[in-house]
Amino acid sequence: MDSLFVIKIGGNVIDDEENLSAFLQNFAAIKGKKILVHGGGKIATKIGEQLGIQPNYINGRRITDAATIDLVTMVYGGLVNKKIVAKLQSLHCNAIGLTGADANIIPAIKRPVKDIDYGFVGDVLQDKMGVKNLEVLLANNFTLVIAPLTHDSNGQMLNTNADTIASSLAVALSKAYDVRLIYCFEKSGLLENVDDDDSVITLITKEKYQQLLADKKLFDGILPKIDNAFAAINGGVKEVLIGHANDLLQNVTANTKGTLIK
Amino acid sequence: MDSLFVIKIGGNVIDDEENLSAFLQNFAAIKGKKILVHGGGKIATKIGEQLGIQPNYINGRRITDAATIDLVTMVYGGLVNKKIVAKLQSLHCNAIGLTGADANIIPAIKRPVKDIDYGFVGDVLQDKMGVKNLEVLLANNFTLVIAPLTHDSNGQMLNTNADTIASSLAVALSKAYDVRLIYCFEKSGLLENVDDDDSVITLITKEKYQQLLADKKLFDGILPKIDNAFAAINGGVKEVLIGHANDLLQNVTANTKGTLIK
Repeated sequence: MDSLFVIKIGGNVIDDEENLSAFLQNFAAIKGKKILVHGGGKIATKIGEQLGIQPNYINGRRITDAATIDLVTMVYGGLVNKKIVAKLQSLHCNAIGLTGADANIIPAIKRPVKDIDYGFVGDVLQDKMGVKNLEVLLANNFTLVIAPLTHDSNGQMLNTNADTIASSLAVALSKAYDVRLIYCFEKSGLLENVDDDDSVITLITKEKYQQLLADKKLFDGILPKIDNAFAAINGGVKEVLIGHANDLLQNVTANTKGTLIK
Repeated sequence: MDSLFVIKIGGNVIDDEENLSAFLQNFAAIKGKKILVHGGGKIATKIGEQLGIQPNYINGRRITDAATIDLVTMVYGGLVNKKIVAKLQSLHCNAIGLTGADANIIPAIKRPVKDIDYGFVGDVLQDKMGVKNLEVLLANNFTLVIAPLTHDSNGQMLNTNADTIASSLAVALSKAYDVRLIYCFEKSGLLENVDDDDSVITLITKEKYQQLLADKKLFDGILPKIDNAFAAINGGVKEVLIGHANDLLQNVTANTKGTLIK
């Protein structure tokens, strides 16, 4: 099987022009098939403020109301996505920017209301993903740049977490490719000691994960990432790597840095 | 050769939710290969005002400054494009939304400064268009939805007139397809008498065009459209049809309404 990299970058890369430029150069240099999933960054919040869209929280969770889904469709699907695509094209990487609505690659269901109505948030319908369309695009050597947006198949765009988009894509394509899923974030990997950037845990297995949980060694923010990672592994993804964008992409096939999850 | 419809809609369709919905139903029902090019509509102006971006004119021509290119990248490339794509997907039309940067389909050059510096406006590089990528996408039965944006191949998005995008695409694909280019606008076609919607000129040839020009029968706003149409015909496009969206698309193969240019 061909190998495929699914790489997710977050706000810390997107918000800084220089960081983004360095990252995209490394990304463009990766040989073979690849998908880039980007988050939103602070620009959506900034433009939202300018437009008078008040962030709306219930129990500390951000709600995607009608104004906000239009905002993120503009900013993630338009501004951020096309800036990345144009930059990659300048680096001779044949990028094509998509949301989950394009080619119906990521259909979702508007999150059912239980305790909280999250508004226009989409839960990915993993079994209905547009795998065939994704495979056609990859087979024709397009590099896919994916914004964290899905759709409900009734004409409504939905907001979906970028980490989830990345793991859903990785799983969906794991039957056709040897998929390596890479989460870039602001730290060098999962740390034994959160204040010591040199304490990277190089390998996490399921047993190690249970032990870390029992020892309360994992800080809250990282738990959803690891859960996503194991969900991906259980779904057929070969391995997941978590770490700093600059470390990981400079020698992406060597896997010598960051935290490897298998 | 297979036939291909390249259909351009303007603000009058996009600005009205009901109009757009009716149009997209007719568009989705067209059998065979098709491309939809959309303009911007009033929404960009409205959001620009809310963001405090002042429209900047020199000699009556709108200038695309740095704030404005970001604005139209967001609104045309994100909000408008993805709303159309999501709606088409709900109608089981396998739409994929693109700008000229995506898959490098429409490279352009920032318009050289002569009398006026238009800012981030792109003149299409017709000979460098990504014809092969366009053909791959069409061959795989994707319906392309194109925002009026190009790129300079150095990472900068550019603003390009949607009529020009439509004729450039039509010409670029005329070697591989029997292309019919359809401009939808707010009138029923080219009118002998601009105040009489029943005075549609059904056929314009080059001779007829010269005669209409000599008789001063053409109002200013329509001249660029006809020039674009003849440029397309000269470039290999089979025929160009100009008229009202509702009239044209209900029976698109019959060509019984609007103005036909051959």
